[in-house]
Amino acid sequence: MIRFSVLYPKTDGARFDHDYYRDQHVPLAVSTWGVERVEIDKGLDGPYEAAVHFFFPSTDAIAAAMGAEGTAAISADVANYTDIKAVLQTSEIVEG
Amino acid sequence: MIRFSVLYPKTDGARFDHDYYRDQHVPLAVSTWGVERVEIDKGLDGPYEAAVHFFFPSTDAIAAAMGAEGTAAISADVANYTDIKAVLQTSEIVEG
Repeated sequence: MIRFSVLYPKTDGARFDHDYYRDQHVPLAVSTWGVERVEIDKGLDGPYEAAVHFFFPSTDAIAAAMGAEGTAAISADVANYTDIKAVLQTSEIVEG
Repeated sequence: MIRFSVLYPKTDGARFDHDYYRDQHVPLAVSTWGVERVEIDKGLDGPYEAAVHFFFPSTDAIAAAMGAEGTAAISADVANYTDIKAVLQTSEIVEG
Protein backbone atom coordinates (compact mmCIF):
# COMPACT_ATOMS: atom_id res chain seq x y z
CA MET A 1 0.00 0.00 0.00
CA ILE A 2 1.21 3.48 -0.86
CA ARG A 3 0.56 6.57 1.25
CA PHE A 4 0.26 9.84 -0.62
CA SER A 5 0.39 12.63 1.96
CA VAL A 6 -0.29 16.32 1.47
CA LEU A 7 1.19 18.28 4.37
CA TYR A 8 0.48 21.95 5.05
CA PRO A 9 3.30 23.67 6.99
CA LYS A 10 2.25 26.12 9.67
CA THR A 11 2.82 29.51 8.10
CA ASP A 12 2.62 32.87 9.87
CA GLY A 13 -0.32 34.89 8.61
CA ALA A 14 -1.66 32.09 6.43
CA ARG A 15 -5.22 30.83 6.50
CA PHE A 16 -6.55 27.27 6.57
CA ASP A 17 -10.25 26.42 6.70
CA HIS A 18 -10.28 22.98 8.34
CA ASP A 19 -14.05 22.53 7.94
CA TYR A 20 -14.01 23.27 4.22
CA TYR A 21 -11.00 21.00 3.83
CA ARG A 22 -12.71 18.05 5.54
CA ASP A 23 -16.24 18.60 4.19
CA GLN A 24 -15.59 19.83 0.65
CA HIS A 25 -12.07 19.58 -0.66
CA VAL A 26 -10.92 16.14 0.43
CA PRO A 27 -14.26 14.52 -0.53
CA LEU A 28 -13.85 16.07 -4.02
CA ALA A 29 -10.41 14.46 -4.34
CA VAL A 30 -11.68 11.14 -2.97
CA SER A 31 -14.57 10.97 -5.42
CA THR A 32 -12.50 12.17 -8.39
CA TRP A 33 -9.73 9.67 -7.78
CA GLY A 34 -11.87 6.80 -6.46
CA VAL A 35 -9.78 6.59 -3.30
CA GLU A 36 -10.97 3.88 -0.93
CA ARG A 37 -9.29 5.08 2.25
CA VAL A 38 -8.33 8.54 3.47
CA GLU A 39 -7.34 10.17 6.75
CA ILE A 40 -7.48 13.88 7.51
CA ASP A 41 -5.33 15.47 10.21
CA LYS A 42 -5.74 18.71 12.12
CA GLY A 43 -2.37 19.67 13.55
CA LEU A 44 -2.12 20.03 17.33
CA ASP A 45 1.65 20.29 17.83
CA GLY A 46 4.53 20.28 15.39
CA PRO A 47 5.34 21.89 12.05
CA TYR A 48 2.10 21.07 10.19
CA GLU A 49 -1.24 22.87 10.33
CA ALA A 50 -3.09 20.06 8.55
CA ALA A 51 -2.55 17.00 6.39
CA VAL A 52 -4.33 14.38 4.36
CA HIS A 53 -3.23 10.81 3.68
CA PHE A 54 -4.63 9.07 0.63
CA PHE A 55 -4.03 5.33 0.43
CA PHE A 56 -3.38 3.97 -3.07
CA PRO A 57 -2.63 0.42 -4.20
CA SER A 58 0.43 1.50 -6.21
CA THR A 59 2.49 4.46 -7.38
CA ASP A 60 0.99 3.91 -10.85
CA ALA A 61 -2.45 4.56 -9.35
CA ILE A 62 -1.17 7.85 -7.92
CA ALA A 63 0.26 8.85 -11.28
CA ALA A 64 -3.08 8.05 -12.92
CA ALA A 65 -4.88 10.17 -10.31
CA MET A 66 -2.54 13.12 -10.84
CA GLY A 67 -3.22 12.94 -14.58
CA ALA A 68 -6.98 12.47 -14.29
CA GLU A 69 -9.36 14.88 -15.94
CA GLY A 70 -10.79 16.15 -12.64
CA THR A 71 -7.45 16.88 -10.99
CA ALA A 72 -7.28 20.43 -12.36
CA ALA A 73 -10.56 21.18 -10.57
CA ILE A 74 -9.11 19.83 -7.33
CA SER A 75 -6.08 22.09 -7.70
CA ALA A 76 -8.30 25.07 -8.47
CA ASP A 77 -10.30 24.43 -5.28
CA VAL A 78 -7.25 24.82 -3.01
CA ALA A 79 -7.58 28.62 -2.92
CA ASN A 80 -10.98 28.13 -1.26
CA TYR A 81 -9.43 26.88 1.97
CA THR A 82 -5.78 27.90 2.15
CA ASP A 83 -2.90 29.94 0.83
CA ILE A 84 -0.30 27.59 2.33
CA LYS A 85 2.01 25.86 -0.15
CA ALA A 86 1.70 22.12 0.47
CA VAL A 87 4.48 19.56 0.82
CA LEU A 88 3.91 16.23 -0.98
CA GLN A 89 5.23 12.92 0.30
CA THR A 90 4.82 9.47 -1.24
CA SER A 91 5.75 6.47 0.90
CA GLU A 92 5.46 2.72 0.87
CA ILE A 93 3.70 1.45 4.01
CA VAL A 94 6.03 -1.33 5.12
CA GLU A 95 4.10 -2.17 8.30
CA GLY A 96 0.56 -1.50 9.42
CA MET B 1 -7.96 9.45 17.70
CA ILE B 2 -4.59 11.19 17.83
CA ARG B 3 -1.75 10.56 15.38
CA PHE B 4 1.77 10.92 16.75
CA SER B 5 4.13 10.97 13.78
CA VAL B 6 7.91 10.78 13.78
CA LEU B 7 9.25 12.00 10.45
CA TYR B 8 12.86 11.61 9.29
CA PRO B 9 13.91 14.26 6.77
CA LYS B 10 16.10 13.08 3.90
CA THR B 11 19.57 14.26 4.83
CA ASP B 12 22.65 14.14 2.60
CA GLY B 13 25.18 11.68 3.93
CA ALA B 14 22.91 10.41 6.68
CA ARG B 15 22.13 6.74 7.30
CA PHE B 16 18.80 5.05 7.96
CA ASP B 17 18.43 1.29 8.47
CA HIS B 18 14.83 0.63 7.39
CA ASP B 19 14.95 -3.05 8.35
CA TYR B 20 16.18 -2.35 11.89
CA TYR B 21 13.61 0.40 12.20
CA ARG B 22 10.70 -1.87 11.21
CA ASP B 23 11.88 -5.05 12.93
CA GLN B 24 13.50 -3.74 16.14
CA HIS B 25 12.97 -0.09 16.97
CA VAL B 26 9.28 0.47 16.27
CA PRO B 27 8.27 -2.84 17.92
CA LEU B 28 10.21 -1.72 21.02
CA ALA B 29 8.21 1.51 21.13
CA VAL B 30 4.93 -0.29 20.46
CA SER B 31 5.49 -2.78 23.28
CA THR B 32 6.79 -0.16 25.72
CA TRP B 33 3.89 2.19 25.13
CA GLY B 34 1.17 -0.42 24.58
CA VAL B 35 0.26 1.13 21.23
CA GLU B 36 -2.58 -0.72 19.50
CA ARG B 37 -2.04 0.58 15.97
CA VAL B 38 1.05 1.71 14.11
CA GLU B 39 2.08 2.37 10.51
CA ILE B 40 5.65 2.52 9.23
CA ASP B 41 6.55 4.40 6.03
CA LYS B 42 9.53 4.05 3.74
CA GLY B 43 9.82 7.25 1.72
CA LEU B 44 9.64 6.96 -2.06
CA ASP B 45 9.32 10.60 -3.10
CA GLY B 46 9.27 13.81 -1.09
CA PRO B 47 11.21 15.29 1.81
CA TYR B 48 11.09 12.31 4.19
CA GLU B 49 13.25 9.19 4.23
CA ALA B 50 10.99 7.35 6.66
CA ALA B 51 8.20 7.88 9.16
CA VAL B 52 6.13 6.14 11.79
CA HIS B 53 2.59 6.93 12.86
CA PHE B 54 1.48 5.84 16.31
CA PHE B 55 -2.25 6.06 17.00
CA PHE B 56 -3.19 7.07 20.52
CA PRO B 57 -6.62 7.57 22.09
CA SER B 58 -5.70 11.01 23.49
CA THR B 59 -2.90 13.53 23.89
CA ASP B 60 -2.77 12.54 27.56
CA ALA B 61 -1.89 9.01 26.47
CA ILE B 62 0.98 10.41 24.38
CA ALA B 63 2.24 12.44 27.35
CA ALA B 64 2.11 9.31 29.51
CA ALA B 65 4.08 7.38 26.88
CA MET B 66 6.75 10.09 26.65
CA GLY B 67 7.17 9.98 30.43
CA ALA B 68 7.15 6.19 30.70
CA GLU B 69 10.06 4.39 32.28
CA GLY B 70 11.04 2.61 29.04
CA THR B 71 11.11 5.70 26.86
CA ALA B 72 14.75 6.49 27.63
CA ALA B 73 15.69 3.08 26.21
CA ILE B 74 13.72 3.85 23.05
CA SER B 75 15.60 7.13 22.64
CA ALA B 76 18.92 5.41 23.25
CA ASP B 77 18.11 2.89 20.50
CA VAL B 78 17.79 5.57 17.80
CA ALA B 79 21.56 5.65 17.18
CA ASN B 80 21.31 2.00 16.09
CA TYR B 81 19.41 2.88 12.90
CA THR B 82 19.91 6.55 12.07
CA ASP B 83 21.72 9.81 12.67
CA ILE B 84 18.86 11.86 11.21
CA LYS B 85 17.20 14.32 13.57
CA ALA B 86 13.49 13.52 13.58
CA VAL B 87 10.56 15.91 13.27
CA LEU B 88 7.62 15.26 15.61
CA GLN B 89 4.00 16.00 14.70
CA THR B 90 0.88 15.45 16.78
CA SER B 91 -2.48 15.70 15.04
CA GLU B 92 -6.13 15.00 15.67
CA ILE B 93 -7.56 12.67 13.03
CA VAL B 94 -10.75 14.47 12.06
CA GLU B 95 -11.76 11.98 9.34
CA GLY B 96 -10.77 8.43 8.63
